[in-house]
Amino acid sequence: MIPAGWIAVDWGTTHLRAYAMGPGGVCAEETSTDGMATLTRDGYEPALLRLVGAWLAPGRTLPVFACGMVGSRQGWHEAPYRTVPCPPLDAARLIAVPTRDSRIAVRLIPGLKQAQPADVMRGEETQIAGALALMPGFDGVLCLPGTHSKWVQVSAGEVISFQTFMTGELFALLSSQSVLRHGMAAEGWDDAAFAAGLSETLSRPERIGARLFALRAEGLIAGLGAAAAKARLSGLLIGLELAGSRAYWLGQPIAIIGADRLSALYAQALTAQGASPRLLSARDAVIAGLTALRRGAMETPR
Amino acid sequence: MIPAGWIAVDWGTTHLRAYAMGPGGVCAEETSTDGMATLTRDGYEPALLRLVGAWLAPGRTLPVFACGMVGSRQGWHEAPYRTVPCPPLDAARLIAVPTRDSRIAVRLIPGLKQAQPADVMRGEETQIAGALALMPGFDGVLCLPGTHSKWVQVSAGEVISFQTFMTGELFALLSSQSVLRHGMAAEGWDDAAFAAGLSETLSRPERIGARLFALRAEGLIAGLGAAAAKARLSGLLIGLELAGSRAYWLGQPIAIIGADRLSALYAQALTAQGASPRLLSARDAVIAGLTALRRGAMETPR
Repeated sequence: MIPAGWIAVDWGTTHLRAYAMGPGGVCAEETSTDGMATLTRDGYEPALLRLVGAWLAPGRTLPVFACGMVGSRQGWHEAPYRTVPCPPLDAARLIAVPTRDSRIAVRLIPGLKQAQPADVMRGEETQIAGALALMPGFDGVLCLPGTHSKWVQVSAGEVISFQTFMTGELFALLSSQSVLRHGMAAEGWDDAAFAAGLSETLSRPERIGARLFALRAEGLIAGLGAAAAKARLSGLLIGLELAGSRAYWLGQPIAIIGADRLSALYAQALTAQGASPRLLSARDAVIAGLTALRRGAMETPR
Repeated sequence: MIPAGWIAVDWGTTHLRAYAMGPGGVCAEETSTDGMATLTRDGYEPALLRLVGAWLAPGRTLPVFACGMVGSRQGWHEAPYRTVPCPPLDAARLIAVPTRDSRIAVRLIPGLKQAQPADVMRGEETQIAGALALMPGFDGVLCLPGTHSKWVQVSAGEVISFQTFMTGELFALLSSQSVLRHGMAAEGWDDAAFAAGLSETLSRPERIGARLFALRAEGLIAGLGAAAAKARLSGLLIGLELAGSRAYWLGQPIAIIGADRLSALYAQALTAQGASPRLLSARDAVIAGLTALRRGAMETPR
């Protein structure tokens, strides 16, 4: 029996991650592939109960705080965006979702939107709040690499502005769905090829379309290996993102929030540009963010 | 009964197009979806006979000249690349393919390769030869927009250099496989949105990753319509290609060889940049190229 006081949930497009939270932090965790992409509206509560059922007890209601695509219009219940500039989380703006099972009381976290240039996030706001909890007083820029990488300017505890790049989705499409897939290795890596790709698009971003096809051509006529091709593709796309986000990161304190391997690539790239980024794990950030929210919710009159 | 003297074939990844050629040019044509992507090595001869069988007569062998991916390593038979600089076609470098049916004598046309920067083409070399046949004395730049757009510098009847951009494939992937597909119309167009996209990446190519996601964000929070989103995506990607190919087209005579609608978009974009491109249809160019080759083959001792 887990003595959980509440449940933290990170519910994205492809995964559902739940953490049983006790006084000392995480006391158990479970993950499933019941992401938004695979669920209909009626499927959310059963999917959650399958994952966290063992943490529940009859006659007792556990608070559940959930961030991510679960709060989108196509999710369990829409949690309308809040507009920046604003603090990343606001305990007064949670959306309660009715459940059949009275052992859980679910609240969804709104994403953030920016009017001009138009942009949106869902889930990252919680990681941002976590980063601010883990780095009190941080003013600067947060980089959240991923399918839709975010660059976020934070100051005095607020999100001032942000910009999203489709870097990770482009990598997935190009490496697995395009003509380049014939020359891409699933395994293996080549650091020099990554650095070469990075440098090409950082200095000549307009060449991206040609440099992509060159991966195919070099595979056909110049013996480019599949691991080098994949690493260079990654470098080309991250370099393109860094070229486009330069106004965000140049001369700013930077922290990267992400998965270990991807964060390390961004750190390597930014360091080569003279920056000194700090690294935070996405898991630590999301848990810290949900914990800060839970604390805020207990203090917010309902 | 068609009095064909020979057969011209344009055999790409997705389509097989055959033209029965008489003294006055095309006297019949047939198209199927038996492209390289759907055929095994043994399937090429039957696929061709299905399409052109009605043009054949017993006891008589018709020459068949075929360009495109049919000559790739994964095609019917490999026709090794020729290396630029060189004339786009060389009747002495055709690859004869044995057939079971003696009514056809098939020869495949080699593609072109460039060592540095590494690049390859298959099929476009025939369109280039056709363009030179249709515009005698043309020196300048040819633009062949498509899945893998080509920019080609030609001078004195030779291909001097070329560069491929993955523009069309990126458009297909992004509009039908990415998160942007939710906000893209199959029908409809918006000229102002196309022009806006074009202008954005021509002047700020490094922003492409962010401008792509903005299509999604504006669809969610700013009411961007699906036809406008599709036209702007097209403009963003063509603008990126024009930014990357500027060294090719700036101040040069330009001819565009392609499908009507796509060529018109490139022509609109280039005209807005002060260029005055001529337009040739891809079909006319490939037929003119194969005709020039047939003439050369008759003059080449075997």
